[in-house]
Amino acid sequence: MRLALWQTQGFGADKGTNLAALSGAARAAAAAGATLLLTPECWLGGYNVDVAAGAEQADGPSAVTIAALARETGVAIAYGYAERDGKEVYNSAAVIGPAGTVLGQYRKTHLFGDFERAAYAPGKSFCQPFSLGGFSLGLLICYDVEFPEAVRATALAGADLILIPTALTPEYAVVPELIVPARALENQVFVAYCNHAGAEEGLDYMGGSCIAAPNGRKLAAAGAGEALLIADLNPAMIAACAATFPYRAERRPELYATSTLTTGRRE
Amino acid sequence: MRLALWQTQGFGADKGTNLAALSGAARAAAAAGATLLLTPECWLGGYNVDVAAGAEQADGPSAVTIAALARETGVAIAYGYAERDGKEVYNSAAVIGPAGTVLGQYRKTHLFGDFERAAYAPGKSFCQPFSLGGFSLGLLICYDVEFPEAVRATALAGADLILIPTALTPEYAVVPELIVPARALENQVFVAYCNHAGAEEGLDYMGGSCIAAPNGRKLAAAGAGEALLIADLNPAMIAACAATFPYRAERRPELYATSTLTTGRRE
Repeated sequence: MRLALWQTQGFGADKGTNLAALSGAARAAAAAGATLLLTPECWLGGYNVDVAAGAEQADGPSAVTIAALARETGVAIAYGYAERDGKEVYNSAAVIGPAGTVLGQYRKTHLFGDFERAAYAPGKSFCQPFSLGGFSLGLLICYDVEFPEAVRATALAGADLILIPTALTPEYAVVPELIVPARALENQVFVAYCNHAGAEEGLDYMGGSCIAAPNGRKLAAAGAGEALLIADLNPAMIAACAATFPYRAERRPELYATSTLTTGRRE
Repeated sequence: MRLALWQTQGFGADKGTNLAALSGAARAAAAAGATLLLTPECWLGGYNVDVAAGAEQADGPSAVTIAALARETGVAIAYGYAERDGKEVYNSAAVIGPAGTVLGQYRKTHLFGDFERAAYAPGKSFCQPFSLGGFSLGLLICYDVEFPEAVRATALAGADLILIPTALTPEYAVVPELIVPARALENQVFVAYCNHAGAEEGLDYMGGSCIAAPNGRKLAAAGAGEALLIADLNPAMIAACAATFPYRAERRPELYATSTLTTGRRE
């Protein structure tokens, strides 16, 4: 699979302009031979904005527009957005396949900081993996990846390529530097981590989007600015790396009960 | 606390010569102001040897010798050894305090490869943390650290300094490079990872011992050769890093039940 990460500044809460820019990015991804395009967290209507004002249902008008774009370009589109469901708003990600159908959805389970905890309800479960291009895809969002349990649960559910829209600022540079490649290695999965570039309403992002392989090495990494980051993912790497690092097979889950203790919980 | 890691080639199965060398290392550590000295995995009687032949009970003659050395130098000694308990042999670590008493013990829970699985019985539980020099210490051994569950369980049990004797070869260089600092960061603990140097019975070790801080940065790292690696650990870093990366407080353990599924088990 050829995967494209779209590290973009975006246009904040201006969904129409964001969708127009997505049209260009999807065409560029298709021209580069990519079959899947990933956006940053809450790309559709902005991250550092009044998210409730721009939130849409999972099958809202923007989803219809994105489905038409996926059909037209043949590129599956994985995007972050604020999801309205009744009174609740979730920090969500969805993947729409080249046939225009929704392949997978996820609501962020680990909300970050006071802003997110005020704006969103936390997701209640991890993503059910789904198939695309010979991979089993899972979804997580930003802060989720910093919890090894979240990535492990998604990998144990069967995902071997985990897509992670993010909105990361420079003081957390250690996350793409260390945590993202460590998660790929310890779970024998590919991890695609797509950040915003530039600034949004006074919040500076760090870029640094990357695609990490099951051997803990980055296949590609972006700098700070706008970028369309493209890499080929070879599914044969998964079994090859698992022969050297057989972590999934050699876990001792009977010893891990403390991981489910309901201690230290905040939400 | 000033911590010393003793990255040594050692003398294989020759316990007497290993103990004589430990005497020199403990004196050097004391002279440098260190209050805790850590050896590599199975340092006492060798790693790549007939471990059953040299295995001792936890209170065997070598433990008595090490206790006397700890009392004499005032340096707590954390060491790896093959432990005999009836018919079973464990890949173990123990810490003997400056009063000559055993402060903590641990039997490796994740055995690595066919050699270890033939030579040892797996440990049945994680370490109960114990106090030394203002820290709460935990023990893991080598391959254990590559499983996020093992470090998380030890940290959730209360450890804020985890000592990890190891025996690592160069094809696993990504472990001290990525995994060890990621574990320190994601758990907000100090991690001390002490490897062998040189070769032993045809097995080449990579050195690369390191001490990682709760911010994911290495306080000290060794090259390939013999080294006494010394670093000061500031316990105030733990709370300071937890303010930026509040992972322990913001886990969602009610979602982590899959981590205890008894799937993919091998031992």
